[in-house]
Amino acid sequence: MSKTKGFQKLTFTYEALQTWFDVLQVKRCRDVTIPLDDGFNRVLAEDAIAQEDLPRFDRSAVDGYAIRAEDAQGASQQKPLLFRLTEGEEFTDSAHREAKQVWTGQPIPKGANAVVMIENTKKAESKIEVWTQAASFDNVSRQGEDFKKGEVAVQAGTRLKPYHLALLSALGNVEVKVVEKPKIAILATGNELAKVGEEREEKQIYESNRVMVAGMCRELDADPLDLGVSKDNVDEIAEAIELGLKIADVVITTGGTSVGGLDLVPDAVNKLGKPGIVVHGIAMRPAMPTALAMLEDKPVMVLSGNPVAAITGFEVFARPLICKLLGLKKEETRPIVKAKMTRKIATSLGKKNFVRVKVIQKNEDYQAEPISAKGSGNLSTMTRANGFVMVPENREGLAEGETVIVHLFGEVETVKP
Amino acid sequence: MSKTKGFQKLTFTYEALQTWFDVLQVKRCRDVTIPLDDGFNRVLAEDAIAQEDLPRFDRSAVDGYAIRAEDAQGASQQKPLLFRLTEGEEFTDSAHREAKQVWTGQPIPKGANAVVMIENTKKAESKIEVWTQAASFDNVSRQGEDFKKGEVAVQAGTRLKPYHLALLSALGNVEVKVVEKPKIAILATGNELAKVGEEREEKQIYESNRVMVAGMCRELDADPLDLGVSKDNVDEIAEAIELGLKIADVVITTGGTSVGGLDLVPDAVNKLGKPGIVVHGIAMRPAMPTALAMLEDKPVMVLSGNPVAAITGFEVFARPLICKLLGLKKEETRPIVKAKMTRKIATSLGKKNFVRVKVIQKNEDYQAEPISAKGSGNLSTMTRANGFVMVPENREGLAEGETVIVHLFGEVETVKP
Repeated sequence: MSKTKGFQKLTFTYEALQTWFDVLQVKRCRDVTIPLDDGFNRVLAEDAIAQEDLPRFDRSAVDGYAIRAEDAQGASQQKPLLFRLTEGEEFTDSAHREAKQVWTGQPIPKGANAVVMIENTKKAESKIEVWTQAASFDNVSRQGEDFKKGEVAVQAGTRLKPYHLALLSALGNVEVKVVEKPKIAILATGNELAKVGEEREEKQIYESNRVMVAGMCRELDADPLDLGVSKDNVDEIAEAIELGLKIADVVITTGGTSVGGLDLVPDAVNKLGKPGIVVHGIAMRPAMPTALAMLEDKPVMVLSGNPVAAITGFEVFARPLICKLLGLKKEETRPIVKAKMTRKIATSLGKKNFVRVKVIQKNEDYQAEPISAKGSGNLSTMTRANGFVMVPENREGLAEGETVIVHLFGEVETVKP
Repeated sequence: MSKTKGFQKLTFTYEALQTWFDVLQVKRCRDVTIPLDDGFNRVLAEDAIAQEDLPRFDRSAVDGYAIRAEDAQGASQQKPLLFRLTEGEEFTDSAHREAKQVWTGQPIPKGANAVVMIENTKKAESKIEVWTQAASFDNVSRQGEDFKKGEVAVQAGTRLKPYHLALLSALGNVEVKVVEKPKIAILATGNELAKVGEEREEKQIYESNRVMVAGMCRELDADPLDLGVSKDNVDEIAEAIELGLKIADVVITTGGTSVGGLDLVPDAVNKLGKPGIVVHGIAMRPAMPTALAMLEDKPVMVLSGNPVAAITGFEVFARPLICKLLGLKKEETRPIVKAKMTRKIATSLGKKNFVRVKVIQKNEDYQAEPISAKGSGNLSTMTRANGFVMVPENREGLAEGETVIVHLFGEVETVKP
């Protein structure tokens, strides 16, 4: 019988992640207070509470005239009512129709309770004609209507977008307490690897995984650290991982994890302490030889040397890990789109298959074209694709015309029909 | 008749953008060569050509044994064939079945043309049993199958994703020529504004647009520069814009653009030279008072002071501008999703309405819940929403149950049904 490349048993992706997380008991990274100006894309460490009402006074939502709504009863274009203009902060004379010119955002005078838009008025010397009726608080942004004092304005675990920054600024925050970026130490392994820019032997290829994994870390706003390239040597690899554990929150390696071949990185990890490797061999394709480990209470991830497998392993295991380290409310996922397969494809039963596809939009129709499986480790299968479909373990393929959910890592191409 | 807040005529969004771009003749920012390690998310300035075949030799796609495919004819588990193991770089003896152990990624020996996976073999001392037939180039990544020498590996105008970096590294690039980040100078205007952290008068509010616009610039990987906060004073505003034109590629202001109220920023812009303001008053909601200008051949954008309007104006005009300055192949758009409106809403005929919605996923179903229009300038309408629907100028609203396209700026919420 064919055996599975030396693995006694393959672990399903969700079981693998669960087992790893159970062992790790991942804690969020420390907090750090930074200037609000540097807050873009950082993750808020604690609930931001509104320290005052927002707006902190009733203010005009338009350019126009603040009035008492009841004074305008019956006003129309045919029957305009005349209002006396005032400059004061308060309407003093309750018997007369008073109006005060206000621009958007300005406080309305005490005693006023509505604003008539400028286009529904006409200036007549020291008076104005009002052409419309008004209801209470028409065109007024009421004190506290955006946020009330004491309310949570932005929840802990929120990735700060531009409008969150605006809100925090409006509430008077000069600084913001965010979660530190997790530091991820990255090691590439393999005798076949030469560093770009250095001398290369005839059988060597340029190493390309470190810059890629670093990019994937940056995509989630984690901080990559470079551990360089190790030869296929257990001691050298162990030494590099040990250094990684000193300087970083997570260590990620690539290569040297194939059980059929040399099992160097898992050996190096296990040499360094307990529990070491907790899962090795995942029921997925690509990235089957991925291993998940813990050393010194820190996560260690052993990715394939094949770049496409490394991407997939990172996506499935490093992404949720980093989201937890960042304290995000929930895992950040890629945008998804539903699309129809343009042709059938075969996948391996019992494994979760990550099929790269190119999504094309024709009119309102989304089509997913599978990228040729030949040379599944080729980077061109990534650069030609813009998303992947996760085919579950109980399927042997996808049918032509089947609707699938595509996780997008690039932009959808629009084709004029 | 009601008039449109002083604007003689509102310009449709697409016309406004076209007019502005026609005047600007936007050129891409300069090139800059940077280390590949810093290349994440930057935009490639020129086509990256493969300087050699990738892979540069035939290599094994699996762990196994390199053989001549024809030698394995008729092999099966019932009738295994015996191969002699060799260590050489070349198969010397064409009369005999030779096999060489190879790991994934290693070159196959000269004369070999297929690899049998390790699980389809059994070691028998200095020989191996082969249990399967093989076709030519089974399990072999052929030289140049990923990219051929001379081929364009990554096109100019591509935003560099982690897999692009891997590809450029694999092709031997230590550095990469990218487009410089456009520098965007940002000025907030308004007597009502106090800088966060500074003394505030009773009628003043904390300024919040600069950090927001800066965040929107960073979202597209442009470099924001701070011009501070100006009072409602044409000379002061003009001076700040002049400085912005010296230090940046684009100047963006917020506030002071309402024609109903004070028209200070457009006046300041026009004071500085020709052509100055080219469009003022857009048929959109919010952000109607947005103005588009050019000074010293550089784009100047006058956004509303209302933060939600500023976001919308930025989205419609600054986003395509920055994409052009970056030399992106096409404008980067937000992810979209189709969803059903949970209730009907009214919009203003003749204007493009940007309706904030919250998209919720229930099972396979996406629902878009419009965020209350009351207080449309409130930032909570952004933090409670995760996307917007563009309602075209010829519509007066959206019907309940209508399918709409939502442009997402936050994550879709999943609700257990």
